[in-house]
Amino acid sequence: MDIRAIGAAAKAASRIIGTSSNETRNAALRAIAAALEERKAEIFAANEADLAAARENGMSAAMLDRLALNESRVKLMAQGALELLGVPDPLDRVFDERVRPNGLKITKKAVPLGVIAIIYEARPNVTVDAAVLCLKSGNAVILKGGKEAINSNLKLGEIMRAALESAGLPADCVTVLPDTSREAATALMTLNEFVDVLIPRGGAGLISAVVKNATVPTIETGTGNCHAFVDASADLDMAADIIFNAKTSRPSVCNALETALVHADVAEKFLPLMKSKLDEKNVELRGCERARAILGGCVKPAVESDWANEFLDYILAVKVVGGIDEALAHIARYSTGHSEAIITENAENAARFLREVDAAAVYVNASTRFTDGGEFGYGAEIGISTQKLHARGPMGVDCLTTYKYLIEGDGQVR
Amino acid sequence: MDIRAIGAAAKAASRIIGTSSNETRNAALRAIAAALEERKAEIFAANEADLAAARENGMSAAMLDRLALNESRVKLMAQGALELLGVPDPLDRVFDERVRPNGLKITKKAVPLGVIAIIYEARPNVTVDAAVLCLKSGNAVILKGGKEAINSNLKLGEIMRAALESAGLPADCVTVLPDTSREAATALMTLNEFVDVLIPRGGAGLISAVVKNATVPTIETGTGNCHAFVDASADLDMAADIIFNAKTSRPSVCNALETALVHADVAEKFLPLMKSKLDEKNVELRGCERARAILGGCVKPAVESDWANEFLDYILAVKVVGGIDEALAHIARYSTGHSEAIITENAENAARFLREVDAAAVYVNASTRFTDGGEFGYGAEIGISTQKLHARGPMGVDCLTTYKYLIEGDGQVR
Repeated sequence: MDIRAIGAAAKAASRIIGTSSNETRNAALRAIAAALEERKAEIFAANEADLAAARENGMSAAMLDRLALNESRVKLMAQGALELLGVPDPLDRVFDERVRPNGLKITKKAVPLGVIAIIYEARPNVTVDAAVLCLKSGNAVILKGGKEAINSNLKLGEIMRAALESAGLPADCVTVLPDTSREAATALMTLNEFVDVLIPRGGAGLISAVVKNATVPTIETGTGNCHAFVDASADLDMAADIIFNAKTSRPSVCNALETALVHADVAEKFLPLMKSKLDEKNVELRGCERARAILGGCVKPAVESDWANEFLDYILAVKVVGGIDEALAHIARYSTGHSEAIITENAENAARFLREVDAAAVYVNASTRFTDGGEFGYGAEIGISTQKLHARGPMGVDCLTTYKYLIEGDGQVR
Repeated sequence: MDIRAIGAAAKAASRIIGTSSNETRNAALRAIAAALEERKAEIFAANEADLAAARENGMSAAMLDRLALNESRVKLMAQGALELLGVPDPLDRVFDERVRPNGLKITKKAVPLGVIAIIYEARPNVTVDAAVLCLKSGNAVILKGGKEAINSNLKLGEIMRAALESAGLPADCVTVLPDTSREAATALMTLNEFVDVLIPRGGAGLISAVVKNATVPTIETGTGNCHAFVDASADLDMAADIIFNAKTSRPSVCNALETALVHADVAEKFLPLMKSKLDEKNVELRGCERARAILGGCVKPAVESDWANEFLDYILAVKVVGGIDEALAHIARYSTGHSEAIITENAENAARFLREVDAAAVYVNASTRFTDGGEFGYGAEIGISTQKLHARGPMGVDCLTTYKYLIEGDGQVR
């Protein structure tokens, strides 16, 4: 695999799709959706090859489920493409327009990023879900998925490339890397000549490998060590409902709750209430000393790593704190800047929490699970940024653009 | 020097200035401006120590001039702080506000980046010019200047820290690193726990060292391999004026012109005209074969590095091209994405150049020297971004912010 040739081809394709009309890009999305449905037998066959290899390698049932493509998952991918048809053209935005005293006319206009590289893990549907967002916003995309899904990913790439050509756009607007090795990933992370932005989608290990090795501009996504602070004034039933929902509705995702911080004044009353709800889903608690004194020895003692890491499982760390100051300090120390919540009836504390917590999404009296492009009303997202550069929180098609300044004169010199 | 302690202190300070009022931040800017004037004797003494050491080390006259601080340069630094007083508060911006069908109220609001690290080279005035932009936008800043300017920089840092405290803000909002070693620079580039964004300001060597070594999010700035394409329909006098201005008004800066591309149809007429103007400033030309055939053997042949690198000097590369296609291809290959210009009377070619050139600033019939925050009417800038992530082109105080989502509910779960 010649990564520089792939990069150069993607860059050349990006110049064409980057100046194409919204109609042309929408036609490509329609063609992709249709081709996915028409060629689903090929997709299932490729996916079956991946599944067979995975079973042979003893992959867990949960991982096999993530890898599997079926009728409904193919339909969802196609729908993802079609849903973007109605989304306003992200390139049809002028941010500023001004005429300077010297007569220069300056227009600040949205343009695509260019070539976006995406590195992701097991789920093959990301191949299409991510690609269509890049295409809608006028970018070319280079996709590197997990080795477990390579047959599925290559097939999906082949289908999208053919659909692009049928719509009059270069096939190289979408490239699935055939090489899934670590070396190929590193080559992609350092392809500065051709890659404008790299977005890793995956667990903490992938993100930190990218942060360490990438020399191309990168957007960190999806590490969510999320907290909920139950203030002294909280409606305790509401607090228990929110924590139950944030922890158990989908524990494997980045906006799931990982730690509950409980005001000491209500800990005696609240912790048993919270535990009885969480027991419905057999959530394991890991508590500080004070929480364990209230809840009893059945609760494991929390260790440092329980505060620092995501469980992504039916496990919740629990800490009793002296008040909002201690809660804010704990969050400042351990937060990954994803989603943080306070449950309170105290307007002053709510305002302070909103102001002082440094995270993409800060909640008062609601579940952290709402941090999602769809839930915010922004449509599909390519990931949830936990860094501050460029985009923060759910990133929709608008976040896959940059801008340029167009300056028109009649001979001005400085 | 304990870089982690410095980072932690800056982070703690960033939380305080990040939630301070515009009035408080303006008071700090006023205090800084006043202290610079009041304590200028101390500044000159520290600067004299740097200059004496530099003279001893045989520094060139041009570099000594960049290092020197005098009455007018101190006044300019103070003015830079005062000019920000009237700039609208960059944190007082709400980008979106919506109530979702489930009653969640979502507010997308500007917030500071947090801790900004800036690595720069010889000129000590950058210490203040960069710091005041960071402070106005609610950020803490860690500054690492060149070793030649260490006494000046530490003194300017000391003055700003005292002024911050007098205005009720933590001194740690500004830190000048006492260690100017390469190791200290690398430590700053990898201080992910505390540094939100790193902005290098300097030459291509510094930028590429940062791109290679930094693990913190970075904004590349200031590498400008800028081109002007003289189309067949160009007003040739205008073209000569623009090229003369873009090349000679300040050759050492990033928006200066480095290569002229000339349409073959007008090359015979235009090149002698251009050369006679550039001769006034003794500009050295390095030409392609066709340019040399027209201009004569006195013009040096251009080699590959002449197309690829910035001269930052009274040198211009000259290439005769077959038309706009070849000009666009040359620019696509060699541009650093800073500023590119076409001189033409052909509206179609002008539109095509604006659309197809991938650079922060694309010009029709004007000098590339206008790529500047002040010239664009955006006020002082911290640098000119040549990457596409986060900010592109001149970066004013608004570019030193990010946003967060504030979500207010009454018990919503998903």
